[in-house]
Amino acid sequence: MPDIHDTTPSAARLTVLTGDRPTGPLHLGHYIGSLKTRLELQETHKQYLLVADTQAMTDNAHDPDKVRRNVLEVALDYLAVGIDPDKSTIAVQSALPALAELTLLYLNFVTVARLERNPTIKEEIQARGFGRDIPAGFLCYPVAQAADITGFKAHFVPVGEDQAPLIEQTNEIVRRINRQAGVDVLPEAEALIPTMGRLPGVDGKAKMSKSQNNSIALSSSPDVIREAVKRMYTDPAHLRASDPGTVEGNMVFTYLDVFDDDRAEVERLKAAYRAGGLGDMALKHRLEDKLQALIAPIRERRERFAKDPGYVFGVLRAGTQRAKVVTQQTLDEVRTALGTFTLAVSNRSATGGSSV
Amino acid sequence: MPDIHDTTPSAARLTVLTGDRPTGPLHLGHYIGSLKTRLELQETHKQYLLVADTQAMTDNAHDPDKVRRNVLEVALDYLAVGIDPDKSTIAVQSALPALAELTLLYLNFVTVARLERNPTIKEEIQARGFGRDIPAGFLCYPVAQAADITGFKAHFVPVGEDQAPLIEQTNEIVRRINRQAGVDVLPEAEALIPTMGRLPGVDGKAKMSKSQNNSIALSSSPDVIREAVKRMYTDPAHLRASDPGTVEGNMVFTYLDVFDDDRAEVERLKAAYRAGGLGDMALKHRLEDKLQALIAPIRERRERFAKDPGYVFGVLRAGTQRAKVVTQQTLDEVRTALGTFTLAVSNRSATGGSSV
Repeated sequence: MPDIHDTTPSAARLTVLTGDRPTGPLHLGHYIGSLKTRLELQETHKQYLLVADTQAMTDNAHDPDKVRRNVLEVALDYLAVGIDPDKSTIAVQSALPALAELTLLYLNFVTVARLERNPTIKEEIQARGFGRDIPAGFLCYPVAQAADITGFKAHFVPVGEDQAPLIEQTNEIVRRINRQAGVDVLPEAEALIPTMGRLPGVDGKAKMSKSQNNSIALSSSPDVIREAVKRMYTDPAHLRASDPGTVEGNMVFTYLDVFDDDRAEVERLKAAYRAGGLGDMALKHRLEDKLQALIAPIRERRERFAKDPGYVFGVLRAGTQRAKVVTQQTLDEVRTALGTFTLAVSNRSATGGSSV
Repeated sequence: MPDIHDTTPSAARLTVLTGDRPTGPLHLGHYIGSLKTRLELQETHKQYLLVADTQAMTDNAHDPDKVRRNVLEVALDYLAVGIDPDKSTIAVQSALPALAELTLLYLNFVTVARLERNPTIKEEIQARGFGRDIPAGFLCYPVAQAADITGFKAHFVPVGEDQAPLIEQTNEIVRRINRQAGVDVLPEAEALIPTMGRLPGVDGKAKMSKSQNNSIALSSSPDVIREAVKRMYTDPAHLRASDPGTVEGNMVFTYLDVFDDDRAEVERLKAAYRAGGLGDMALKHRLEDKLQALIAPIRERRERFAKDPGYVFGVLRAGTQRAKVVTQQTLDEVRTALGTFTLAVSNRSATGGSSV
């Protein structure tokens, strides 16, 4: 894995693409799994954040309203955690037609059988219960993702381990295009797999997720945070404070390991819990304090930005404008390299009637 | 089937979309099967002709050069037969990003199983020998075609009978979108199936096609036409002029039925041929004269336009510009009706750096 802390000039020029499907508020899982890393990456890399509303439609076509509403929410979450639009480019996918054009082009370089073999897609089809009714857009979304990654000529794509096959699919397309073009018009991308695994939900289930109702949103009020910590899964056998308790699989300790910087104190607490004599309530108070302290400034910034949607839309427009130029440039280069037909047509509105 | 000769004011406002994949020169089969009809339609309808270079890539991704070269050739064929850019709009598909965006959107409203059931696609997959290696773009091309048809809000689409399932697929998407939007944002399209079936190849095989080497291109020289008629399939049992011959399945008569306006004379010749005493050579001379007379002015106009590629590109640019406005307008309407997110971003080139 490349060292993202490498700030030598050559690393500074490398491009990172990351983003989110706007289908709900971002939560602590996103913060730990990727937003924190993005705050570091924006200091050292050319970073694009894609609000992937087109991709969100591949399994939310019945509810475009949900996707629409969440575009602004995700942008607010970005700004609230400290994504700086002077350092990172935030762009809206649906306003980048070159990505749709690259997707259609790439679909010709991938077989249906290959898409059906993709392990990430196989799992997600199962998880979503599509059965036989898989929308074609869903089957094809790894190709759309290849268009995103290559459209920005991203060198690094931070993804969870389970999404590594999507990067492999992208690179297969890249190699296919480069081989046919006889020139390396597109760079291969590398998955940036986080050293820390996914943050489990407060219920101890594998993954924090809004749909599982086990998440703590970055916009949570103090009461919501308190309630979430209160109902957090600990050790079901630990009935009295004086009983010995189990640390492994105990969400309060899992979260303290992540959110409490005082490592020595956490280790001391684990020993005390194991020995018996340390109650869940005291631990939960400590964790709650940490989470309240983490989220409070995020929530406050978020509220400030939410009062100024004009500014937020300005950020989205400016970023999308920059992204539009970059992705159109890539499309032009790919077309030229492959030798497809290109007709330069101005973007000005045409007048009616013939102008021949 | 609607009467295309209906020139009442309401018919005059109806839109027809037609077009060709630029993979080879247009031939007599295209002329009889569709170009002739387009010459009539441009007098009575709002007609768009789409040079479908993006679609051509779905089974020619390995040879973009072929597609690129044939865009101009198809445009020359159009102008040569009498398509009038003041009456018809000729547009290049790859320069219309809204069609790619509509395609990606529609892919979410069609299941993979539905695409695999499409009888036209099933047959074409077999014909092309794709086997298991069907490019995803090929499986999805009926959806791209739905984007073309609806992007222009076409009421009529002239297609061969074998392509009627593609119109049905389009209308399924239209109904799905309109139902979800709660408003008829897109019109359903109707197939205009020609009364005359497909022109068979000179070898008597089902379909005239360049790849079958049984076609007569509209740009053919007099010698090529002569040779093609000379080797035309007649009645293999008709060895001497004095022998009785068979008219059915005899390509010379099939072609005379299509290209010889003197119906009475053709019937007389059929009777004489059946009776015996009429040689193939005399018949072929007659047919050759008809074809030379038909193609000569087309070839001459074609040569004139070919000397002025600047004019032809001007026609393509002007038509594509008009088509760009129309298709972008449709995309905007569909997005608004469905309630997806839309961000207005100018098309001017952005300057680098932040503009927040």
